[in-house]
Amino acid sequence: MKSGDLKISWARQYMPVLSSIRERFEREQPFAGMTIGMALHVEAKTAVLVETLAAGGAEVHITGCNPLSTQDDVAAALNERPRIHCYAKRACSVEEYYASIDKVLDARPAVTIDDGMDLIHRIHTERRELLKTIIGGCEETTTGIHRLRAMAQEGKLAFPVIAVNDTPMKRYFDNVHGTGESSLTAIMTTTNVLIGGKHVVVAGYGYCGRGLATKARGLGARVIVTEIDPRRALQAHMDGFDVMTMDEAASRGDIFVTTTGNTSIITRQHFPKMKDGAILSNAGHFNVELEVDWLEENAGAIERRDGIDSYTIGGKTLHVLAEGRLVNLAVPKGMGHPIEVMDLRGFRKTALFSKVLYSPGST
Amino acid sequence: MKSGDLKISWARQYMPVLSSIRERFEREQPFAGMTIGMALHVEAKTAVLVETLAAGGAEVHITGCNPLSTQDDVAAALNERPRIHCYAKRACSVEEYYASIDKVLDARPAVTIDDGMDLIHRIHTERRELLKTIIGGCEETTTGIHRLRAMAQEGKLAFPVIAVNDTPMKRYFDNVHGTGESSLTAIMTTTNVLIGGKHVVVAGYGYCGRGLATKARGLGARVIVTEIDPRRALQAHMDGFDVMTMDEAASRGDIFVTTTGNTSIITRQHFPKMKDGAILSNAGHFNVELEVDWLEENAGAIERRDGIDSYTIGGKTLHVLAEGRLVNLAVPKGMGHPIEVMDLRGFRKTALFSKVLYSPGST
Amino acid sequence: MKSGDLKISWARQYMPVLSSIRERFEREQPFAGMTIGMALHVEAKTAVLVETLAAGGAEVHITGCNPLSTQDDVAAALNERPRIHCYAKRACSVEEYYASIDKVLDARPAVTIDDGMDLIHRIHTERRELLKTIIGGCEETTTGIHRLRAMAQEGKLAFPVIAVNDTPMKRYFDNVHGTGESSLTAIMTTTNVLIGGKHVVVAGYGYCGRGLATKARGLGARVIVTEIDPRRALQAHMDGFDVMTMDEAASRGDIFVTTTGNTSIITRQHFPKMKDGAILSNAGHFNVELEVDWLEENAGAIERRDGIDSYTIGGKTLHVLAEGRLVNLAVPKGMGHPIEVMDLRGFRKTALFSKVLYSPGST
Amino acid sequence: MKSGDLKISWARQYMPVLSSIRERFEREQPFAGMTIGMALHVEAKTAVLVETLAAGGAEVHITGCNPLSTQDDVAAALNERPRIHCYAKRACSVEEYYASIDKVLDARPAVTIDDGMDLIHRIHTERRELLKTIIGGCEETTTGIHRLRAMAQEGKLAFPVIAVNDTPMKRYFDNVHGTGESSLTAIMTTTNVLIGGKHVVVAGYGYCGRGLATKARGLGARVIVTEIDPRRALQAHMDGFDVMTMDEAASRGDIFVTTTGNTSIITRQHFPKMKDGAILSNAGHFNVELEVDWLEENAGAIERRDGIDSYTIGGKTLHVLAEGRLVNLAVPKGMGHPIEVMDLRGFRKTALFSKVLYSPGST
Repeated sequence: MKSGDLKISWARQYMPVLSSIRERFEREQPFAGMTIGMALHVEAKTAVLVETLAAGGAEVHITGCNPLSTQDDVAAALNERPRIHCYAKRACSVEEYYASIDKVLDARPAVTIDDGMDLIHRIHTERRELLKTIIGGCEETTTGIHRLRAMAQEGKLAFPVIAVNDTPMKRYFDNVHGTGESSLTAIMTTTNVLIGGKHVVVAGYGYCGRGLATKARGLGARVIVTEIDPRRALQAHMDGFDVMTMDEAASRGDIFVTTTGNTSIITRQHFPKMKDGAILSNAGHFNVELEVDWLEENAGAIERRDGIDSYTIGGKTLHVLAEGRLVNLAVPKGMGHPIEVMDLRGFRKTALFSKVLYSPGST
Repeated sequence: MKSGDLKISWARQYMPVLSSIRERFEREQPFAGMTIGMALHVEAKTAVLVETLAAGGAEVHITGCNPLSTQDDVAAALNERPRIHCYAKRACSVEEYYASIDKVLDARPAVTIDDGMDLIHRIHTERRELLKTIIGGCEETTTGIHRLRAMAQEGKLAFPVIAVNDTPMKRYFDNVHGTGESSLTAIMTTTNVLIGGKHVVVAGYGYCGRGLATKARGLGARVIVTEIDPRRALQAHMDGFDVMTMDEAASRGDIFVTTTGNTSIITRQHFPKMKDGAILSNAGHFNVELEVDWLEENAGAIERRDGIDSYTIGGKTLHVLAEGRLVNLAVPKGMGHPIEVMDLRGFRKTALFSKVLYSPGST
Repeated sequence: MKSGDLKISWARQYMPVLSSIRERFEREQPFAGMTIGMALHVEAKTAVLVETLAAGGAEVHITGCNPLSTQDDVAAALNERPRIHCYAKRACSVEEYYASIDKVLDARPAVTIDDGMDLIHRIHTERRELLKTIIGGCEETTTGIHRLRAMAQEGKLAFPVIAVNDTPMKRYFDNVHGTGESSLTAIMTTTNVLIGGKHVVVAGYGYCGRGLATKARGLGARVIVTEIDPRRALQAHMDGFDVMTMDEAASRGDIFVTTTGNTSIITRQHFPKMKDGAILSNAGHFNVELEVDWLEENAGAIERRDGIDSYTIGGKTLHVLAEGRLVNLAVPKGMGHPIEVMDLRGFRKTALFSKVLYSPGST
Repeated sequence: MKSGDLKISWARQYMPVLSSIRERFEREQPFAGMTIGMALHVEAKTAVLVETLAAGGAEVHITGCNPLSTQDDVAAALNERPRIHCYAKRACSVEEYYASIDKVLDARPAVTIDDGMDLIHRIHTERRELLKTIIGGCEETTTGIHRLRAMAQEGKLAFPVIAVNDTPMKRYFDNVHGTGESSLTAIMTTTNVLIGGKHVVVAGYGYCGRGLATKARGLGARVIVTEIDPRRALQAHMDGFDVMTMDEAASRGDIFVTTTGNTSIITRQHFPKMKDGAILSNAGHFNVELEVDWLEENAGAIERRDGIDSYTIGGKTLHVLAEGRLVNLAVPKGMGHPIEVMDLRGFRKTALFSKVLYSPGST
C-alpha cells in the first residue's frame, strides 16, 4: 500500500460511524448523479469522508482550504479512487490555490462543503452563474457562519447553507474531548514539559475550557480558570478549580491556554507579571486571544524554535506556541482533532445531505 | 543561536534543580582537575547534565549509548563548550560506536556515568589498565544493575558502582509521572486516536502502571488493570479500576500498555481474542512483554506505518507501536521523559559524585 | 444560645449570598409593609431565608410543607424573631397541618413562597377571596410547576407564579453538586459500606446523574451509567463511564442510584439478576423509579433497619434505602442539600421578589 | 430478628473474607478447645470477627476497649451465640470496666486480641499467673505497639505479640480508603457543608493524607497539602496538589484535616490567620494534632453543638469537630471504618492465629 492509502486506512478503522454510513450509501446510492464540491483540509480523516460520499454515488471534486494543511500523499491516493477528483497541493501559491477552487467549481457542484467559506464566497462573487444549479451547502467555521448570517440578513445569501457545527453534539465531543485532548497533546509534544504539578491557566470555561481543565487536572496539573461570565465562573469554582482574573493568574501560571473565542485575553498588561519561562498557547479558533504582535514589536530578543517563539522582555522569557494560532493544529507535530471526533463531524455533514438519515432536531 | 544551543537552552530552563546545582558547582568547583567519562543518550536534557558537571570543573568526555538517540546538533553544541568533548554521532556504524567509547576511555576518566554499562563493561574487559585510576561509576538501567550485582557477587567488580535509580524518588517521579505522561503522549501522537471513552488495558500495577492508569482515567479512558500480585491487584480494585486477567481483558481493550518488567505479557494466546484494530504498546524497559516475533511470523499480512506495524491475522488487524519497544522513546515522535523528570534524575547523578551534596539516604 | 438558634447560626455562616442580600435589605427595606406567606421545610437553612426576608421589612408568616421535616427548635427560634410568625409543628395531624396553612393565609400575604404548591392550591380553591390582593408567588418543585402550567393553559391560574428552579443555575449547583454529594453521603452514612472499588450504577445522565457519577468515581467507585437518550449516553461514554442498559447493569452493580425523573427504572425484571446484597436507592424527586411495591408484595422475607428495607427473594437479599424516596432527604441521617446549595436557592427566591436585585435573564 | 442481630447480619454480608474464613474454620476447627480473650469495640463489625473465631471452635470471652463504643444490642446478640461470652456494657463505670477485663482473664485465654493493650497490660501487672499458659496475643494500635516494643527491649514482654497492622495491606486499605472515605463522610454529615469548591487543607501526605486528598479532590474540593518531608511534599506537588506550610495554608483553608501522627500541627500561631468559619478536624490516631486546649482557654466565647465546638477569638469563629479526636469515630454520626476495611483487618487477625492460613510475609 502507498503512503497516502496507509494513512487513509489507518483513519478509516477508527471511524465506525462513517463506515456504517458508507455501507448504507453503497446500498442506497443517495447521491447518484450528483456532484459535490469540497474545500477542506486534505488529510486522512477528510479523505474518509470523501470516500463515503463517493460511495453514495457522488462525483466529488475537492481542493484544500489552507495551503499548509494538504498532505500530498493523501491527495494522490484520493485521485486514484473512482469518482474523486482532488486538486489540492501543499504549499501552493495563491494563484494555484484559487485556480484549484475554480476547478472544483468548474464541475458545477449541486452541493458545497466548506471549511472557511471559500467555495460559497467565490460562487457569490466570481461564479454567480452557478447559483442557478446549486442546491445548498454547509459550512464548518464559526466565522464563516457569522458572515453567512450577515449575508442572509442582508438578503444576499442565494442558497441555503447549514451550520454544520450548530448542535450540542459538536460542543460535547469536538470541544470537550477533541480540543481538550489534542491541545494538551500538542503542548506536551511541542515542549516536552511535564504536566503533573504544573499550574495550568485555562482562559474561558465554555466547552473547550471545561474539557481542557478537566483533562489537565486528570494528568496531575493544578488548574486555574479565568472566566468573565459569573455563572460559568461559579461552575468552575464548584467543579474544584481556582477561579480568578487573568491579572491575578498571570503571575501564577506555568502554562496558559486560551479558549474564550474573544480577543485580547492575554495582553501587554499581563506579560510583565508572568513567570520566566511561561508557556502561552491558544486553543480558540482565531489567533486573536494572545497579543503576539505586541511581543513581536517590543521583545528585546526573539528566539525561534519549531512551533515556539520565545520573547525576552524585562529580563524574562515568554514562549508562545504556534504564533498564538490554534495549538492542536498549528504546531509542527499538531494533528488536529482525534480521528473519532472527525468521524462524528463527518456524520453530521453526510447526514445533512441525505434525507434518508436526516431529520431536523435529530442531532 | 544555533539549533543545538536552542534545544539545550529550552531544556535548561525547565531544569531548576540542575541550575541551582550548577551555581553551587561554579562556586565550589568540586570536580576541578577530575575527568568524567559518560555514555548517555546525547540529546538536550543530557547536555544540561554535562554542562553542570563541566561547570563544576570536570573535564567531560561523552559519547552516545545508542546510535539512534544521538542528536547531532546537540553533540556539535556540546563540543563548542569548554572542557566538554563529545564523540557521539547519529547512525554511526558499530565500529565507530566502539571507537567513540574508546575515545572516552582514552581520557582516563576517574568516574564513569553509564546508561547501559558500556563504559564499565569495556573497562573490565578491553581496558583493564584503567582499573588502577578509576574511583567509581554509576549506572542507570535495571539490567545493567543486575549484571553488576552478579559481577560483584562473583568478586569480579573492580570498583564501586552506584545504582542511580535505586531510590523511592525514581519510582515516584520517573515512573509514575515521567513514564505515565510520556507514554500516553507517545500513543496519542502516533495514533491520533481519542483516549476519552476508550478501554485502556494497563498490564501491571507497579509505579509505571499506577501513573498510566491514573492519567489515562484522568483523560476520560475506562481503565482495566491486569496484575498477578494479589495485593497490588486489590489496590487497583480499590482505586476504582477494573481488575482481571489478560485472558479476560484481551477481548475488551482498545489500547494495551504493558508495564510489568516481565516477559510474555501479551502473547499468541491473547491475540485471537482481541478486537479488530486493537493498539498494543509497551512502556516497560525491554521489548519482551509483547510477543511481536510470533506476529511477525504468523500474520497473513503486515503493513508498516511510522511507528506502527499492523498485523492481520484471523481476519483482524492488530497494531503494535514501536515494535514493542519502550513506547515513549521508540516511536518516531517520542521524546523520552519530560524535561523535569530528567532534572531530578540529573540531580541524583550529580549528587552521587559530590560529597558537598550527597549523604547516604538523602534521596 | 438555644438549640434552634445554634442550628440557624451554623447554617447562616455558610450562606454568604443571603448574608450580603440581608445587608442590602436592611438598608433598602424593599418589603416594608408587605406580608409574605411561606410553606417550606422548617429547618435551619430555610430559617436563614426567612430572616433575610424579614430583614427587608416583610412580615413573614410560615408553616411547614411536610409534617415530618419540621424541626421544632428551629420553629421556636423563628417565633422569637420580630416580624416572623411560624405555625409549623413536627408530626402534626392532617387537621393541624391545614389549620396552619390557613393561619398563614389569614395574614393575607401579598406574595407566596411554596414548596409543593400548598398555599397556591388553597388560595385557588378554599380561599379565593385572597386573589384580589395577591401579587404573585413562587414554586420550587417540578411537579408543582407542571400543575401550574396546566392551570395556566386552562386559564385557571389567577396570579403569576415564578418557577424558582427554572434556571441553569439550579441544574449546575443543586443537581450536580447538591444532589451529587448529599446522596453519596446519605448512602455512606446509612450503609457504612466503602465506595472505593464498588460498582455504582447511576441511572440517568442528566445533571444529577453527572454529579453523582463524577463524585462516585472521585471516591474510587467504578461507575456504570444507564441512559436512554443516545446523545447523553455517548456523553457518558466519552466521559469515561461504562454505558449499558439496566438489563445488563443489573447483574454488575453493588449500589444503584436512580436519577432519571422517570418511572419504573429498576423493576421486577431486574431484581432477579442482581447480586445478593445489592443496595438500591433513588435520588430523583419521586419514589417511582424503583418498583418497591412489587418487592413488598413478593419478597419471601423482609427485614427492616433504620432507613433500609431488605427483601429476600429467590435466595438473594436486596436492600432498598429510604423506601425508594429521595435518598438524601429520606434516610434517618439525611440532611437534604448542603447549606451552600440552599444559599444559592435562597438567592433565587429573594431575587424574584426584589426589583432591586432582579432583572429578567439575570440568572 | 432483634436489633443486635440485624446490625450483625448487615455487616456480615459485606465481609466476604471473614465469611470464607468462617466456612473453612467450621470445617477445620483450628481453635477447638482453645480460649480466646478479646478487648475490642463491641459493635457489629467486631461481632462478625467474634463469630468467625467461635465458628473455628474457640471459646471467646470479650469485653469492650472503650466504655462509649459498646453497642448494648450487639453485646446482647453475641451473648446468645454458643461459645461466646460478652461482658461489655455501654457507659459503664471505671470499676465495671476493669471488672469486665478481669472476667475475660478469668477464662484463662490462650490467646489475646487487644485494641489498646488492656488485656496484655493487665496480664503483665495484676494477673501474672496467666503468663504460664498464654501462647501469644495481638495488638492493633500504634501506641500499644510502641509500648510493647519498649517492653520487649527491656526484656519485660513475657509472650509474643503480633503487630496486627504492621503490613502494607493496612496502609493501602485502612488508611487510604478507610480513613479517606469515612473522615470525609463524618465531616459532611456533621457540618452539612458542600465539599465541592471548598479549600480543603490536608496536613500530612502519608497514606491517610493521600486518601483524603485524592477523594476530597474527587468530590470537587481544591486541596492544599502541608508536608514537612521533602520527598512526600514533592510527591503531593506532582500529584497536582498545592503544597505549602501550615503558616501559609492557614489563611486559605475552609476545612482542615490533620493526618500526620505528630503533635501540634495546627496551633495558636495558625488560629489568628484563619478564615471566619473555618472547620478544623483530625483524622490521626491521637487528639494531639490540633491545639484545642489553647482554644478552650483563650476563646472569648464558646458554643457547643453536636460534635462541633465553636471558638470565637479575635472576631472570628473557628469550629473544631469531635474535640480534635479521630473525626471518623468521634463525631456523633461517626461509624468508624467502612465494613469492608474491617473485613480485611479481621482477616489479618484470624490469619495470625491459624497456621492453616498464616505464613510469614504473606500479607
